[in-house]
Amino acid sequence: MKPAINFTPGPSQLFFTVEDHMRKAFRDGIPSLSHRSKTFESIYKETAEGLKELIGIPEHFTIVFTSSATEVWERIIENLVEDSSHHFVNGAFSKRFYEIAQQLNRNPQKTETKEGFAFSKPGALPATELIALTQNETSTGVSLPVSFINDFKLVQPEALVAVDAVSSLPYPEFDFTKIDTLFFSVQKGFGLPAGLGVWIVNHRCKEKAEALRTKGISIGSYHNLPGLLELAQKNQTPETPNVLGIYLLGKVIQDMLRRGITTIRRETDYKAAIFYQALEQHPVLKPFVTDRAIQSKTVIVADCGEYTSQLSDYLQSKGLFPGEGYGSFKKQHLRFANFPAHSKEQFELLVDSIEAFKP
Amino acid sequence: MKPAINFTPGPSQLFFTVEDHMRKAFRDGIPSLSHRSKTFESIYKETAEGLKELIGIPEHFTIVFTSSATEVWERIIENLVEDSSHHFVNGAFSKRFYEIAQQLNRNPQKTETKEGFAFSKPGALPATELIALTQNETSTGVSLPVSFINDFKLVQPEALVAVDAVSSLPYPEFDFTKIDTLFFSVQKGFGLPAGLGVWIVNHRCKEKAEALRTKGISIGSYHNLPGLLELAQKNQTPETPNVLGIYLLGKVIQDMLRRGITTIRRETDYKAAIFYQALEQHPVLKPFVTDRAIQSKTVIVADCGEYTSQLSDYLQSKGLFPGEGYGSFKKQHLRFANFPAHSKEQFELLVDSIEAFKP
Repeated sequence: MKPAINFTPGPSQLFFTVEDHMRKAFRDGIPSLSHRSKTFESIYKETAEGLKELIGIPEHFTIVFTSSATEVWERIIENLVEDSSHHFVNGAFSKRFYEIAQQLNRNPQKTETKEGFAFSKPGALPATELIALTQNETSTGVSLPVSFINDFKLVQPEALVAVDAVSSLPYPEFDFTKIDTLFFSVQKGFGLPAGLGVWIVNHRCKEKAEALRTKGISIGSYHNLPGLLELAQKNQTPETPNVLGIYLLGKVIQDMLRRGITTIRRETDYKAAIFYQALEQHPVLKPFVTDRAIQSKTVIVADCGEYTSQLSDYLQSKGLFPGEGYGSFKKQHLRFANFPAHSKEQFELLVDSIEAFKP
Repeated sequence: MKPAINFTPGPSQLFFTVEDHMRKAFRDGIPSLSHRSKTFESIYKETAEGLKELIGIPEHFTIVFTSSATEVWERIIENLVEDSSHHFVNGAFSKRFYEIAQQLNRNPQKTETKEGFAFSKPGALPATELIALTQNETSTGVSLPVSFINDFKLVQPEALVAVDAVSSLPYPEFDFTKIDTLFFSVQKGFGLPAGLGVWIVNHRCKEKAEALRTKGISIGSYHNLPGLLELAQKNQTPETPNVLGIYLLGKVIQDMLRRGITTIRRETDYKAAIFYQALEQHPVLKPFVTDRAIQSKTVIVADCGEYTSQLSDYLQSKGLFPGEGYGSFKKQHLRFANFPAHSKEQFELLVDSIEAFKP
């Protein structure tokens, strides 16, 4: 029996150093470390500074921790939207962000496009407080090009631009002059156990939250943004956080820095290229997203039609575990994460197996 | 160098089986397990059912997971309070619960008493939607007797009774006919790494949250109570949760069930008794809480006066790590957790050391 390789898009394959870091964490007492200790502060600092270095976040952005990216959706709406946000919806997760704004009694607007297809250019967007973009739609494998994201500051410089990069970071190279807030969760591209969200914000976000509070609007309690930011200055958190999660993230970021972000991005491109090619050349399989400009490099969705369960069983028999299609696509799609935890060799094995698949 | 024993009141000493469970978790792929898998559902079920058995929670209560007890404070106010809650405030943590209600733009009321002292009997409490009780005030070591909690249903049967048992469970024996919701976090009495809160609710909580939503009041988004409960029926969670945390909690609960809750409670009583006695008989130390009816069994606060730092250094030189005094008590208190993770032998060593302390 070969060791299983987990290609599910999150929780996914663990980054290969995680178990060692966990062992060291226990040796060093991290699981029972006080979050008000100097040691915790240095862990927070190392994690935040490492992340800034890894994905090129400018100094004037601040990194705070939540329990999930789902929580960040809620906190963004609570803290940054008084009346209305505008959501670009092209799948289940971008839709969920929109619905969260509804649940919080805002009046969100949306630009919707068919699953698997590109949005047209921003154009004449109605004025809004916040533009919500799901850079990588995990349900369908559609990725918004960074150039598409960057255009919003041209058409609506006053709006805050919020980017969900849950299942793509650390791969994309963002232009931080064009976005105001960015977030992800650690169980995807960072190959860690679930239970931690990372929220990156600039001073405009802080000012907006403070302005709402001044107006008497509730911006939440223990995780309101000004409170999170005030403690982040001291490398602290309002509540007892997932200390172990923050520690492990910091360690994996150090590993990624040693490997180099350029190498990680190049390998991601390589793995995506050979996999999309295998799908395109296969007699009965094809990529779900056919427009190459928006094909996600990090979550690749195969349209397997009537062969879905057969292919899934076949891959699993080889120890290769694909993710199921999302929602209504369950019976015709398989999803494959292409994260830094997935080695070139593992993708070559996956590609060989796909090529050898003859239904 | 003797191994360090962590008496801080949370994060605290790990339950002695946690590292083994973590190792097995990695062997079994738990850190990258999908939260939509059957395996996750069975983990959720085992954890919830084990907890019900351990602390005698009736079947009609439901257990849901949050990221912290701090989050539960927020969710309780959002879901169960339209206008006003009434808080019994006797220290930093009960005060924080009250302040969270303020931050969420409710109009909370409070009954306040001096730190270290008992509340008088409920008496003529103004009508309120929810009574917020901090059963064990971690900052001062004051514990509300269960009989005090039970009286609220007599004076105000319509109000929901919410009990924060963050730093006392699994020790107290609650009467679940007298409370509507109870919560804790895992890094205290359960001896686990931080990053998970446990929220136990009955049907009256669900009905209240639904009534608020029907009125058009926002009850939050991904963690609103009806949403949490709907998924809990399927042993699922709205977001990708701290899967590893839920798994470890379930395993430690099984260990506690094997040891038996009666044994755990008896040992807690024994350890508390010898420690309070040592404090009472010491020439320069004394318990901060002098009223025996409200002395916490699980967080014991020593009033060390001018000897605080000397005692702290002395204990640490023996590998015994006390918690600092909370807030303004930093220079005169030391706090000692008495959780199931702390063995009788460890407490006997602590008591011997206290007795031998001659400033």
